[in-house]
Amino acid sequence: MKKITVNLGKRSYQIIIGYKIINLLSGYLKKLNLTESSVVITNARIKKIIGIKLINVLKSANISYRFKTVPDSEKSKSQAIAFKLIDRISYFTKLKTPFIIALGGGVVGDLAGFIASVYKRGIPYIQIPTTLLAQVDSSIGGKVGIDLAYGKNLVGSFYQPRLVLSDIALLNTLPKKQVISGLAEVIKYGLIKDKVLFEYIEKNYQRISGLERPSLEYIINKCALIKADIVTQDEKETKGVRTILNFGHTIAHAIEAAGNFKAYNHGQAVGLGMLAAAEISLDLGLLSSKETISRIKDLLFSVGLPVKLKGLSIERIIKALAFDKKFIRGKNRFVLLKNIGQAVIREDIPVLVIRRALKKIIC
Amino acid sequence: MKKITVNLGKRSYQIIIGYKIINLLSGYLKKLNLTESSVVITNARIKKIIGIKLINVLKSANISYRFKTVPDSEKSKSQAIAFKLIDRISYFTKLKTPFIIALGGGVVGDLAGFIASVYKRGIPYIQIPTTLLAQVDSSIGGKVGIDLAYGKNLVGSFYQPRLVLSDIALLNTLPKKQVISGLAEVIKYGLIKDKVLFEYIEKNYQRISGLERPSLEYIINKCALIKADIVTQDEKETKGVRTILNFGHTIAHAIEAAGNFKAYNHGQAVGLGMLAAAEISLDLGLLSSKETISRIKDLLFSVGLPVKLKGLSIERIIKALAFDKKFIRGKNRFVLLKNIGQAVIREDIPVLVIRRALKKIIC
Repeated sequence: MKKITVNLGKRSYQIIIGYKIINLLSGYLKKLNLTESSVVITNARIKKIIGIKLINVLKSANISYRFKTVPDSEKSKSQAIAFKLIDRISYFTKLKTPFIIALGGGVVGDLAGFIASVYKRGIPYIQIPTTLLAQVDSSIGGKVGIDLAYGKNLVGSFYQPRLVLSDIALLNTLPKKQVISGLAEVIKYGLIKDKVLFEYIEKNYQRISGLERPSLEYIINKCALIKADIVTQDEKETKGVRTILNFGHTIAHAIEAAGNFKAYNHGQAVGLGMLAAAEISLDLGLLSSKETISRIKDLLFSVGLPVKLKGLSIERIIKALAFDKKFIRGKNRFVLLKNIGQAVIREDIPVLVIRRALKKIIC
Repeated sequence: MKKITVNLGKRSYQIIIGYKIINLLSGYLKKLNLTESSVVITNARIKKIIGIKLINVLKSANISYRFKTVPDSEKSKSQAIAFKLIDRISYFTKLKTPFIIALGGGVVGDLAGFIASVYKRGIPYIQIPTTLLAQVDSSIGGKVGIDLAYGKNLVGSFYQPRLVLSDIALLNTLPKKQVISGLAEVIKYGLIKDKVLFEYIEKNYQRISGLERPSLEYIINKCALIKADIVTQDEKETKGVRTILNFGHTIAHAIEAAGNFKAYNHGQAVGLGMLAAAEISLDLGLLSSKETISRIKDLLFSVGLPVKLKGLSIERIIKALAFDKKFIRGKNRFVLLKNIGQAVIREDIPVLVIRRALKKIIC
C-alpha cells in the first residue's frame, strides 16, 4: 500500500493506493471526522460490484448512507442531473449536512465533486475512483465540474476532496475499453514528465493491459505522485505549472465535442490529441526528430488506442476548439513536447499549424 | 470618499465608498487588469437609471460589454436563470474570458457572483451595489449563491469580488421600502458590534431615512468597516467569527421561506428575526433587561420596519427553520445578544424557547 500526500495547507489530503483496501475506509473517515451521514454518488454497474462492500464499511462505522446512481455516461455531467441530485440531497438529509462519496470514474467524480463544491457553499467529499483514468488523474486535484452545450467542464471549480482511496482490485471488473482509455493518461504523464515511466510502459504494456497487479501498482503510484506534485505547486492552474497536465487535452476536448461525445471516448481523444500536439511540436521545431512521433504512435497503437482520426472534419474540430476554456482571452495555448518527458507551453499557435497537424492524424 | 481593504491575501480587494464615483471605475478596472470584455448583470430599473453612465465608463476604458437583465425579485436567484445567463455568456463571449459586473442589490450580487464562481471554474467579478442593503452587507465578503425549493442560498460558495464600488448617489433613486429594508442590516451591525452606531441611528434615523448624504456616508462606512473586519478574520465562516453576522437571519430566512418570499422582504424579515433573537436572549437570561428589547423595537418601528409578525403560523416558521443551513448537523445555532453591541453564539436552543420567542412577536 502506498500513501501520497497532496500538500495544500488546510486543504491537504491523502491518496491511498492499494489492493482490496475498501475496508480501510472507516478508519480514514473517522480520522477526518466524517462520521454522520453520507451520500454515495455512483452508477449502477459499480454499485452492483462494490455497493455491498461499501455499505458494510459504512454500517460498521455507524454512518448513514443514501445511494444515488447516475447513468454511466458523460451526459451525467449535466446541469439537470446535478440539480436533481442536489434537490434529493437537500430533501433527504434535512437537518444533517452529509459528506459525499464519489464512487466511480471521472464522470461520477467530476459531478459528485461539483455538487459537494456548491451545496450549502461546500460540503466535504471523498473520491473512491474505480477506473484507471480516475485513479491516475481525475480523482486527484479537485477539478470538478459539469458540461454545457458549448463545451465540457464550462461550469465548475477547484474543490479538493478530503481523501482519495484508490483500490486497484476495482480495476479487475473494468471493461477493457476503459482500461485502454485510462492508459492514454498514463502515457501522458510519461510524455510530459517522466521518460522512465514512458519506457516502462513501452516494455510492460502487455502486463499492464493484462491488469497484472505489480505493474498496475507501479504506474498508478507513479502517476499519482506526479499529479500530486503538480497540484501542490499550482492548485488553481494560475502559475502555468498545472497547465502541462492539459497535454493533448485541448484538441482532445474538441474531438470529443465535435463527435458529440460519442465518436471517441476521453482516452481515445486524448491519445489523438497528444499525437496532434506532438505533430505541432515537430512542425514548430520543438521536437527534433520524427522518430519520437513514431514512438508515441507505436505505444498508443500497442495499448489499443486509435492513431488515426476517422469520421470528423478538420473544420468541426477547429470550431469546437474555439469554445475550449484553454483558449484564453482569444489567444490559444498549447502544451507541446521538447522531448519525451519534457513539456513546454506555447501560446498563439497559428491555426494553419493546428490544421497541418490535424491533417497528419486524419484518415 | 472612503477606501476600505478586505485583507484576504491573494484574494484581497478594496471597497470604495463615495458620492457620484461611477466614473472612477475605469481607473480601478485598469489597475485590476480587467480590460477586455465584461458582462453586466443587472435589472431593468437600475439599467435605466445608471446604464448609460456605466456604458460611457466602459467605452472610455475600451472594454466591451453586454448587459443581461434579470427580474428584480428573489426568484431571479434560481438555477434556471443562473444557467440561462451562463449559456448566454458562454455563447457571446466565445473566445474571450469576460469579467462580470454585478450592478444591483443583493439578488443581482448573489446571482452574478455565483455565475462568476462557477463559469470556467471561476472568472473575476466586481460589485457595484445599488441598494443600501447591498452596500452595507451583501456586496462585501463573497457569499454568493442561488436558492432551492428547500431554502435560500442552498447552492453557492465563498467567492470574493475583485472590487466593491459603493456609489451613495445611487441610493437616491431607491424605493423607500428598499431603504428601510437596508436599515435592518445597519441596525444589525449596531446590535452585534457597535453600540455607538446603534445610538447614532437612534438619534439620526430621520436624516438617514431622508437620505442625507453625511449620515448615509457615516453609516455605510461604519458597516463596511465592521463587515470587512469580520470577513478578514473568518472568510469562510469556519471560525465562528463570521457567524455573528447571521444575527436575526436564522429566523428571518424561515420567515421569508414560510411566506414564500412574498409576505416579507429580507429587511423586514431580518428586523423580526432580530426581535425574536432578542426575545430568546432575554428568555435565556443573556439579556438582563426587557428595556433593551423595547429600545430595539422602538428603533425598528421608527425606521419603518414591522415589529409584529402577521399572517404566518409559528408551525410554518419552525418547519422552514429545519431546512436552514445554519441548523448544522441537527443542532441549531443562534446568534444572541448579551447587550447592545455584544453578540454571543449559542447552540441547541430548545424548540420550546424558539416557539415562546415567536409567540411574543406574532400578532
